[in-house]
Amino acid sequence: MKKQAVLDILREVESGALSADDALTRLKLEPFEDMGFAKVDLHRELRQGVAEVIYGQGKTPEQIAAITGSLIRGGEEVVLITRISSEAAAYVGEKYRINYDPRSKVGIVGEIPEPDGKGTIVVATGGTTDIPVAEEAALTAECLGNKVKRLYDVGVSGIHRLLDHAEDIMTARCIVAVAGMEGALPSVIGGLADCPVIAVPTSVGYGAAFGGVAALLSMLNSCASGLSVVNIDNGFGAGDLASMINHL
Amino acid sequence: MKKQAVLDILREVESGALSADDALTRLKLEPFEDMGFAKVDLHRELRQGVAEVIYGQGKTPEQIAAITGSLIRGGEEVVLITRISSEAAAYVGEKYRINYDPRSKVGIVGEIPEPDGKGTIVVATGGTTDIPVAEEAALTAECLGNKVKRLYDVGVSGIHRLLDHAEDIMTARCIVAVAGMEGALPSVIGGLADCPVIAVPTSVGYGAAFGGVAALLSMLNSCASGLSVVNIDNGFGAGDLASMINHL
Amino acid sequence: MKKQAVLDILREVESGALSADDALTRLKLEPFEDMGFAKVDLHRELRQGVAEVIYGQGKTPEQIAAITGSLIRGGEEVVLITRISSEAAAYVGEKYRINYDPRSKVGIVGEIPEPDGKGTIVVATGGTTDIPVAEEAALTAECLGNKVKRLYDVGVSGIHRLLDHAEDIMTARCIVAVAGMEGALPSVIGGLADCPVIAVPTSVGYGAAFGGVAALLSMLNSCASGLSVVNIDNGFGAGDLASMINHL
Amino acid sequence: MKKQAVLDILREVESGALSADDALTRLKLEPFEDMGFAKVDLHRELRQGVAEVIYGQGKTPEQIAAITGSLIRGGEEVVLITRISSEAAAYVGEKYRINYDPRSKVGIVGEIPEPDGKGTIVVATGGTTDIPVAEEAALTAECLGNKVKRLYDVGVSGIHRLLDHAEDIMTARCIVAVAGMEGALPSVIGGLADCPVIAVPTSVGYGAAFGGVAALLSMLNSCASGLSVVNIDNGFGAGDLASMINHL
Amino acid sequence: MKKQAVLDILREVESGALSADDALTRLKLEPFEDMGFAKVDLHRELRQGVAEVIYGQGKTPEQIAAITGSLIRGGEEVVLITRISSEAAAYVGEKYRINYDPRSKVGIVGEIPEPDGKGTIVVATGGTTDIPVAEEAALTAECLGNKVKRLYDVGVSGIHRLLDHAEDIMTARCIVAVAGMEGALPSVIGGLADCPVIAVPTSVGYGAAFGGVAALLSMLNSCASGLSVVNIDNGFGAGDLASMINHL
Amino acid sequence: MKKQAVLDILREVESGALSADDALTRLKLEPFEDMGFAKVDLHRELRQGVAEVIYGQGKTPEQIAAITGSLIRGGEEVVLITRISSEAAAYVGEKYRINYDPRSKVGIVGEIPEPDGKGTIVVATGGTTDIPVAEEAALTAECLGNKVKRLYDVGVSGIHRLLDHAEDIMTARCIVAVAGMEGALPSVIGGLADCPVIAVPTSVGYGAAFGGVAALLSMLNSCASGLSVVNIDNGFGAGDLASMINHL
Amino acid sequence: MKKQAVLDILREVESGALSADDALTRLKLEPFEDMGFAKVDLHRELRQGVAEVIYGQGKTPEQIAAITGSLIRGGEEVVLITRISSEAAAYVGEKYRINYDPRSKVGIVGEIPEPDGKGTIVVATGGTTDIPVAEEAALTAECLGNKVKRLYDVGVSGIHRLLDHAEDIMTARCIVAVAGMEGALPSVIGGLADCPVIAVPTSVGYGAAFGGVAALLSMLNSCASGLSVVNIDNGFGAGDLASMINHL
Amino acid sequence: MKKQAVLDILREVESGALSADDALTRLKLEPFEDMGFAKVDLHRELRQGVAEVIYGQGKTPEQIAAITGSLIRGGEEVVLITRISSEAAAYVGEKYRINYDPRSKVGIVGEIPEPDGKGTIVVATGGTTDIPVAEEAALTAECLGNKVKRLYDVGVSGIHRLLDHAEDIMTARCIVAVAGMEGALPSVIGGLADCPVIAVPTSVGYGAAFGGVAALLSMLNSCASGLSVVNIDNGFGAGDLASMINHL
Repeated sequence: MKKQAVLDILREVESGALSADDALTRLKLEPFEDMGFAKVDLHRELRQGVAEVIYGQGKTPEQIAAITGSLIRGGEEVVLITRISSEAAAYVGEKYRINYDPRSKVGIVGEIPEPDGKGTIVVATGGTTDIPVAEEAALTAECLGNKVKRLYDVGVSGIHRLLDHAEDIMTARCIVAVAGMEGALPSVIGGLADCPVIAVPTSVGYGAAFGGVAALLSMLNSCASGLSVVNIDNGFGAGDLASMINHL
Repeated sequence: MKKQAVLDILREVESGALSADDALTRLKLEPFEDMGFAKVDLHRELRQGVAEVIYGQGKTPEQIAAITGSLIRGGEEVVLITRISSEAAAYVGEKYRINYDPRSKVGIVGEIPEPDGKGTIVVATGGTTDIPVAEEAALTAECLGNKVKRLYDVGVSGIHRLLDHAEDIMTARCIVAVAGMEGALPSVIGGLADCPVIAVPTSVGYGAAFGGVAALLSMLNSCASGLSVVNIDNGFGAGDLASMINHL
Repeated sequence: MKKQAVLDILREVESGALSADDALTRLKLEPFEDMGFAKVDLHRELRQGVAEVIYGQGKTPEQIAAITGSLIRGGEEVVLITRISSEAAAYVGEKYRINYDPRSKVGIVGEIPEPDGKGTIVVATGGTTDIPVAEEAALTAECLGNKVKRLYDVGVSGIHRLLDHAEDIMTARCIVAVAGMEGALPSVIGGLADCPVIAVPTSVGYGAAFGGVAALLSMLNSCASGLSVVNIDNGFGAGDLASMINHL
Repeated sequence: MKKQAVLDILREVESGALSADDALTRLKLEPFEDMGFAKVDLHRELRQGVAEVIYGQGKTPEQIAAITGSLIRGGEEVVLITRISSEAAAYVGEKYRINYDPRSKVGIVGEIPEPDGKGTIVVATGGTTDIPVAEEAALTAECLGNKVKRLYDVGVSGIHRLLDHAEDIMTARCIVAVAGMEGALPSVIGGLADCPVIAVPTSVGYGAAFGGVAALLSMLNSCASGLSVVNIDNGFGAGDLASMINHL
Repeated sequence: MKKQAVLDILREVESGALSADDALTRLKLEPFEDMGFAKVDLHRELRQGVAEVIYGQGKTPEQIAAITGSLIRGGEEVVLITRISSEAAAYVGEKYRINYDPRSKVGIVGEIPEPDGKGTIVVATGGTTDIPVAEEAALTAECLGNKVKRLYDVGVSGIHRLLDHAEDIMTARCIVAVAGMEGALPSVIGGLADCPVIAVPTSVGYGAAFGGVAALLSMLNSCASGLSVVNIDNGFGAGDLASMINHL
Repeated sequence: MKKQAVLDILREVESGALSADDALTRLKLEPFEDMGFAKVDLHRELRQGVAEVIYGQGKTPEQIAAITGSLIRGGEEVVLITRISSEAAAYVGEKYRINYDPRSKVGIVGEIPEPDGKGTIVVATGGTTDIPVAEEAALTAECLGNKVKRLYDVGVSGIHRLLDHAEDIMTARCIVAVAGMEGALPSVIGGLADCPVIAVPTSVGYGAAFGGVAALLSMLNSCASGLSVVNIDNGFGAGDLASMINHL
Repeated sequence: MKKQAVLDILREVESGALSADDALTRLKLEPFEDMGFAKVDLHRELRQGVAEVIYGQGKTPEQIAAITGSLIRGGEEVVLITRISSEAAAYVGEKYRINYDPRSKVGIVGEIPEPDGKGTIVVATGGTTDIPVAEEAALTAECLGNKVKRLYDVGVSGIHRLLDHAEDIMTARCIVAVAGMEGALPSVIGGLADCPVIAVPTSVGYGAAFGGVAALLSMLNSCASGLSVVNIDNGFGAGDLASMINHL
Repeated sequence: MKKQAVLDILREVESGALSADDALTRLKLEPFEDMGFAKVDLHRELRQGVAEVIYGQGKTPEQIAAITGSLIRGGEEVVLITRISSEAAAYVGEKYRINYDPRSKVGIVGEIPEPDGKGTIVVATGGTTDIPVAEEAALTAECLGNKVKRLYDVGVSGIHRLLDHAEDIMTARCIVAVAGMEGALPSVIGGLADCPVIAVPTSVGYGAAFGGVAALLSMLNSCASGLSVVNIDNGFGAGDLASMINHL
């Protein structure tokens, strides 16, 4: 349930006493003025435009189900649960209708909303083993209201597979490029695209891949224009940022 | 001077035989069809929307001056030269009117254009020693047509200095957060903002700063929403990406 | 049971032949003069003011129970057992009344003593996943005679949650700041506080967190005044040092 | 010159309308309430109890002299300048009486104050090459009002040299232990002392010393009670923290 | 001058008493049978098919000139000197006709021989800053009797520049791919070619390039077929191996 | 089944309208001209001369069996499956005759072909624990049509064992040298051989072996002529490259 | 069974035709002259003076038992088996009388021989958790004919425990100093002793211990005279070297 | 001048009241009993059997000359000065007859003593660039009374050069093996020798040599018997330890 103060502000907007913009600013600033607010997570949603997300790792099935229930009762229509085991997803599924993707360990309670972003987000991977991380990004972006185009297994050691999709790349509004091992995919995509490219290194590989460090360093050193990097395997962060950019 | 093929395409647009969108697509795709094009750099500009930039490091004053002249004669109105020594800037200044910032080693030939981006880019630093990298980002963004708000020396070990600027942070369209040493600034800013935050680690510090690695790792591990990272000291890359986002 | 030589010294104090200060000095120096002392651990207690602690990791339940019994019989009123599994705690619990905290894997035999430290120790964490390490620090400090104030989940990407507790931070006598991932919490706290801040990096995180190295480096590079660092996940060491400072 | 608001608070204290403790709290909190304060550095001093310090590295002689002058005119009686070159010290010395220590590159303008700390701070080094960092710590502590006992060149590969000073170690209120190479000194001292030990790794050494990393890791892994670590070569930080502990 | 034993073997071949193959085997094995041979370097040449090379780094101009003279008098027609300064090259040039390339710091005394390899070696670079290392490889290969095709500045963030040269890549017998920063070029080339690709990381770059480590790791993790890696900046090693493959 | 376009090209060759060389070139280039090709893997085979390989790691037994069946039906005579568990091999073995080597986790469906390479490939190991990686290389090379000579357990700390095989080494056309721990074997072999040496570091060892990093660095720093390196434990890559060289 | 050639040499010694010294030299050199020797391990024993050792890790119980049997039948009186699991030891124990130490995972078949070394080897550890590695060293030394004095749990953070044993340290002929975590023990011992000190880092510790790297670096940087280092956890190597020194 | 207490002890020996062995023990133990001794360095000599050594690095010419003078006046016949610049050596040479070796930066005042060690120390290097470190070891050993055999430039990529010296290696009492780059020399020597081998990694090399780390790791991972390692470039430490072993 939403806090009284938030409702008061919204009622002022309803009555015309406050513009929507001013209301948003007041809501954002409130924590610094009022020390007694009750629900940080609600507030965070207002400030950052992100639908409710539960980071499942390290939480028990019971905890995840309880938080999900609390959010649903609070009015959330979609709840995205990342890094949730199949067992926990089954447990949640006993109470709520959940769509679970075992590759990416993403569970979605509720319907994926209609896209309201301004363009298409491309999610591309270098190999098939990068798909779990890519799906975490893609499903995150879809839950946050984006149209997503998946280009999987278009790695640079078979460059024609990537070039076949040059038009998708050139017309995207934001691209999430996921790659392990040598991590070269974002550089090549960055040279073809003229939109922001979010590079996601994955821990795929062995030996001198060092759990994603090789890919991470490769991406940080790219000289392609418009490229930035998130943490190893951080598909959620990339999808969230891509959505933010697509809604600007 | 521009290549004949490019002009032909543009004339087709003028005559109405080709829409602007289709022309842009053809220009982007052309390198794959026509092997004989003469000028890669020009082409890159069309594809990526970036005003002409010269990376000065490792080039002689004579080389920089020659490339500058070629660009000016080719019709460029602003040329941004990064990582150029004061000696090289003086040499270029004998022939062209150059504004040189010795802190960031950025030289600008021509006038900074009127901003045409959609909002304001905030460039923030943790300390005064991070300013050279921040200025590289800020001047890059300004040369690419953006309004820039500088918030310097607002590091997290004096958090009130940052909070004084909460409104700037909350109303920015994109933020470049520059920090060395512990690299915590982007995380704190990312928690306040609801726009993309581009984190730039700097090589400022000593001992276990490891030339920017401590700051880089700190930024990659941030759990703030909408945060991504570029290479250590890569102010240009951050400014370029911020401009790309601000023009979406 | 205490060694005869120690009793002799204490009796000299009782009889007035020796001041308490001189006795303490003699007790500390004794190992260099007398090679035949029997019990190192007892001696260590005298020299360092620390209540008896058993480091449980790598010890069998039987060994832990035996050492506990030996200490209890020797007159100890509180025994703190760190890194003890729930199985081992259950085994010890068959013989002695033990309070076991499964999050921090800390077991306490006997009653937590009344606080005799001079002020309050604040133990703060960046996220909920840092709580096990924080509890190891907090319970250690409590067993050593300190009043502890817990501030959990006040990470820097939601800075208002931390600022709500500014008064606790500003009036503490010593602060233990626990954080994984980007490790920025101690820097921000160090900028608010004017007491020593002991930073504890945790191995929480994934990818470029490198098992706590990112947080460790971030903390070592902080420019906040009065901040020092202990080993990754070393909650006990931080609680012990905080108690030492709080009893000065 | 001090800001009006600060004076107002102090006048309230003078008039009895405000207790000193409450005034201090108000001064600390003020930045969050009043956005227009003029002088961060002054404020920082109030909050953290540190006499004015200038970090000389990266500043020109002119800048250092100007800041020194501003502080002296503002009423500071002692200004500590760290990491200042002999040339810069000579320049400052043309205007102000400066004591310059070329080993530690520390300059002091004004008189070292009478010690007002509660005990003695011991500053110990493993070898003679660690003395510059140790002196930065010792002079910092002296400028901040502490009595300092120096124990130099008492490294662990000649353990008798250290044991000769066992009494100094056992009666100190805080110890700064400085060591490069294998970095074992703080562990041995930590086993003898019952006060906090601040370990400072130095970049002394060659080969696998890795610029202080070997010493840093050694110190982080010590099992001595009461030991914490600051950044490599950070003598100032250690002296500052030692003073803070000695004034508790 | 050549050793008598070697001449004896060759005379046996001339007289028909020994086949060329058997002679080569005897020459290779000889060091294990005869302990008194005088000139290791001569022997090495026979065993490894490499024309005489002087590694100039760390040698004085006088030493380089003396070795060059000794080799010329011993019958060598081409002497390749790597990592020789312009000053040393000038000194050698006083006595012998030397062609010096200041970019790669390679000096060649004598004429580059007619190519006798079986195909063409392609030497490709990602950027212009990689050219010094590439030229060391290309000149080495040419001195060892190979036809070399240079493809410079064909980096992956402008993939069309590389694709323009697809035919050169597909018809090469061996490719040396030189790249710094993200080091992705060899992967892309390896996906196009069906000949061995020797990847050479360069120390070009800054920040997280770590002096070539990022490129090295990227190359080691490539999944392109037929790709192997040499040390950072080791243009000579790559050119030498490419020649060996081209003469198989 | 092969795509119509490929057949058309082959028919042109049959009819004499196209030379085999030109046909191969057209096949290689085709992906850039025709976006509609159906089967990447087939195409890859044409371009790189490699028999069909399945990388088993991360694939289910069902997936491996399905791909194997598809390849067999498509006309492949030998299918090499690397990194396949014994369980998966047993599953595949229910449908197809498979030879499984449990040491190297390599499975081969079909008959190893008659060698058609130009010489012998030597595969050598430093110790017995390196044999799994060496067998992956040796079996790969054999499946690709090469004669392989195995020299196992000839490590450098018993140099006579290696020298006993000097003749094998000196007459090889390509050598794969596999070693963990100190990784010195390839250097010693490279000094004896005059053919390319492909060095494979293995993750064998403990402590400062760092999972193969010690061996990897050792190999990269070798000054032996003709030596290059592949990723840690990458026996397949080494065998594949050796075969490519042996068929040149 | 011993090879005929070895027996022939020994018979020449028996008959007086060959001195023992010359025979030993011939035996050492033989592998370079005679390519047909059958048993490397026998030979190794002659050359290096080490009793037969089986490295158990990675070998099956059956393999270990078979090798043990072969050695016993060949005349060995003591067989030392390192890194053998309790299961494998039980299996071997069904056929041979084995003494198994579960801490160090060392098994000994046969009787430990009477010491024939020239002095005493001290084996010291910093903590109780280092004992497994220390026992591997101590048992190795005992099996190779040395008198061993164990000094366990004498770590440097309780320096008096070490000093109690100063006489043992000062009269040893060789010392093996085993320590994890900060690894300072060998430095302190090296300052007391005037014999060679072999430092063994252990993987004991957590966090920034990095699996023994912190201790390894500490030991490499020691400035104590006569100190050298072996690999992390390499108790066998240290015991073997200590025995070699004790028999000089 | 020697301290009275030391003379007293020696006089007791002269008078027969004390055996030489007991006297040595008393001298060693004295620092723990008597806190007032004056000269640590003298004492150290007695305890560790090392002739006087001055570590020149970081000392001024004046300081080195003064210490040298003090030692000579105190009765030293040979003073070994390591890491002394040619300028400092010239300065010392004005007052004392010094032999200076510019390669190793070693200066020797006085005559190298007659060897009194029990055998020969072999000092071997992999390449000519390792000679400076090797000479530091060799000259140290000679100054400490050892016969030294130098085997330079016998690296493993030309194994016959090493095998030519097999007899020197097999008859040595101790071997110092110096190598940079891949660091394989000690392993190969360790396999031939049956005496202790002290491995010295050097910082020679470039790229992935990482300033000696590659060689260091290689040496730590050697499985040769009797091998231990000292710090990178630590020729003095190796020569000192070799002498200690040669005098046992």
